[in-house]
Amino acid sequence: MISAKGYAAHNQDAALELYSFERKEPGDYDVLIDIIYCGICHADVHQSKNEYGNTKYPLVPGHEIIGRIRSIGEKVSKFKEDELVGVGYFILSCGHCPSCITQEQQFCDNGITPTQNGKLSDGTFTKGGYSDCIVVNENYVLSVPETLNQPGAAPLLCAGITTYSSLKHNKVGKGHKVAILGLGGLGHMAVKFAASFGAEVTVLSSSAAKEDDAQRLGAHHFVNTSDKEQFASLANHFDFIVDTVSAKHDYNTYLNLLKKDGTMILLGVPPEPSTLHAHALTGKRRKVTGSFIGGIEETQEMLYYCAKHKITADVELIRPDEINEAFERMVKGDVKYRFTIDMQKL
Amino acid sequence: MISAKGYAAHNQDAALELYSFERKEPGDYDVLIDIIYCGICHADVHQSKNEYGNTKYPLVPGHEIIGRIRSIGEKVSKFKEDELVGVGYFILSCGHCPSCITQEQQFCDNGITPTQNGKLSDGTFTKGGYSDCIVVNENYVLSVPETLNQPGAAPLLCAGITTYSSLKHNKVGKGHKVAILGLGGLGHMAVKFAASFGAEVTVLSSSAAKEDDAQRLGAHHFVNTSDKEQFASLANHFDFIVDTVSAKHDYNTYLNLLKKDGTMILLGVPPEPSTLHAHALTGKRRKVTGSFIGGIEETQEMLYYCAKHKITADVELIRPDEINEAFERMVKGDVKYRFTIDMQKL
Repeated sequence: MISAKGYAAHNQDAALELYSFERKEPGDYDVLIDIIYCGICHADVHQSKNEYGNTKYPLVPGHEIIGRIRSIGEKVSKFKEDELVGVGYFILSCGHCPSCITQEQQFCDNGITPTQNGKLSDGTFTKGGYSDCIVVNENYVLSVPETLNQPGAAPLLCAGITTYSSLKHNKVGKGHKVAILGLGGLGHMAVKFAASFGAEVTVLSSSAAKEDDAQRLGAHHFVNTSDKEQFASLANHFDFIVDTVSAKHDYNTYLNLLKKDGTMILLGVPPEPSTLHAHALTGKRRKVTGSFIGGIEETQEMLYYCAKHKITADVELIRPDEINEAFERMVKGDVKYRFTIDMQKL
Repeated sequence: MISAKGYAAHNQDAALELYSFERKEPGDYDVLIDIIYCGICHADVHQSKNEYGNTKYPLVPGHEIIGRIRSIGEKVSKFKEDELVGVGYFILSCGHCPSCITQEQQFCDNGITPTQNGKLSDGTFTKGGYSDCIVVNENYVLSVPETLNQPGAAPLLCAGITTYSSLKHNKVGKGHKVAILGLGGLGHMAVKFAASFGAEVTVLSSSAAKEDDAQRLGAHHFVNTSDKEQFASLANHFDFIVDTVSAKHDYNTYLNLLKKDGTMILLGVPPEPSTLHAHALTGKRRKVTGSFIGGIEETQEMLYYCAKHKITADVELIRPDEINEAFERMVKGDVKYRFTIDMQKL
């Protein structure tokens, strides 16, 4: 077994604490990765507090992992020792269903194994990237270009691919007017990617203080959603709305901002259902769809794209002993725009 | 002016009564049509009772019209006297917006003028097809093949084009598994068209009594939605669900029956918003969209398609003095599957 340490939640009310545990020895097709950085995703906060109702404690969160390969299994062919690599939301899928075969493993018919809190065949649960090392099958490991800013690259493995895949799948690009609803971890990546793909980007936010940031991130316009007159003037205006809001909200208000045949892409998953009025769709033949992270091949494509276009997340780098404070600040929305933990300080 | 008579509602509580009124003289580009048959759409019932809150009385409903041309304006080029023609949901649009130019007049940026209760430029409101004649600009008149069963052809002008356009626009056809939710006026047409386009059609209904009819109409399978076990077995099964239900219902239950990338097409517009859980979309990248009648060119295409493939609505033919009773029966869902009024009996 491999000795590992990390930060774990031991029950839903407790703060995360330093924790020692063991990881399995790498098999023939596994790589052992020394973790350098790990991003903090909102899902980490929800899962630590058992807000999805399925958390197995002790929970080591973390699925936005950047690290270097310490050693490789005998039959590993894709990676070598010392290579810079990444691990994202899942570390296994069935490999043989139609989704896996077409490199959309995130929709695996037999269920992906998430990097944290995922059930393994031996009945144990996966422990994520808030730790010093991790063992992963080479097919679920990404090559990370050395030119990328590493703390900023960590969130690409979840927030990055979630937005990239949703925009790519819906063919968002030049000539499109795109609204980004909510400017947080997902929203700020959506702005960067949509602008980079050539779209005309508008940030919709209820916080006027975000206007400068929106433009610095690449948005062409900013609309304060509490300005009712300006909001009303945007009716039938956008080709796409990327909705990154995770709190319950009324979809109809925003749907009316879409042109005929426009599409609203849901990335945020509010805990309760929201309301949808059929008329908001039928009257202009609009669509609502959703998207969920991305496949391994697409994540790799995104990392190369980010290196070429110098795109990473805007992050605040913290020490592992600041995780609990970071969680509290995330709940208040007090982060621009993602925390990355320096796991070397463990 | 042209003397006309028909059936009108005079207030929201009153039964429809025989009513005499005048129609404008046909202009250069208008045709005067002697109405033979008119279908009864649910919207007629709602509008008669002012359930949309915008009814102008006296209201003459009716937008599923079949008739013969009595006379034509001097500059009419598309039609001749005595031709069999149809009029659908609208009798005017702006003609110059992008939607009108691309023959999707139903989405006219400046608003269509509905055949009934539609405001005209002189401040009066249109009177529909529950009458002996109507005057319409030739660009909004459809040619009806003589081989079509005429009472059954009337509902094609609204229920028919609504389902045809939604299936065509979403490219429903061979190799697709399609569920039709609700077997009423829209639903029974959706079954006929989807089967005719080569799809494998399943009717989802809470009424076991409809099973024989579903198969007679062309469905390949029938599922009683109150059979929980059978319903659960359909998870991730369909490429499309055509939702014709106009009462409030939970979209999430049905969305889970869609495969990855599957689409739910809303045709029914419940008066209150329904609930949508983002997870039902994101987890399988599903879509919800809507559709609304069709453009003039597409309606014409549908009528030719129906003549070629011998498709019309299943109707119960009634006399004009039976309209009020028909309204009552429609509210109870007691019609297989559309009423058509024989306007020659007026």
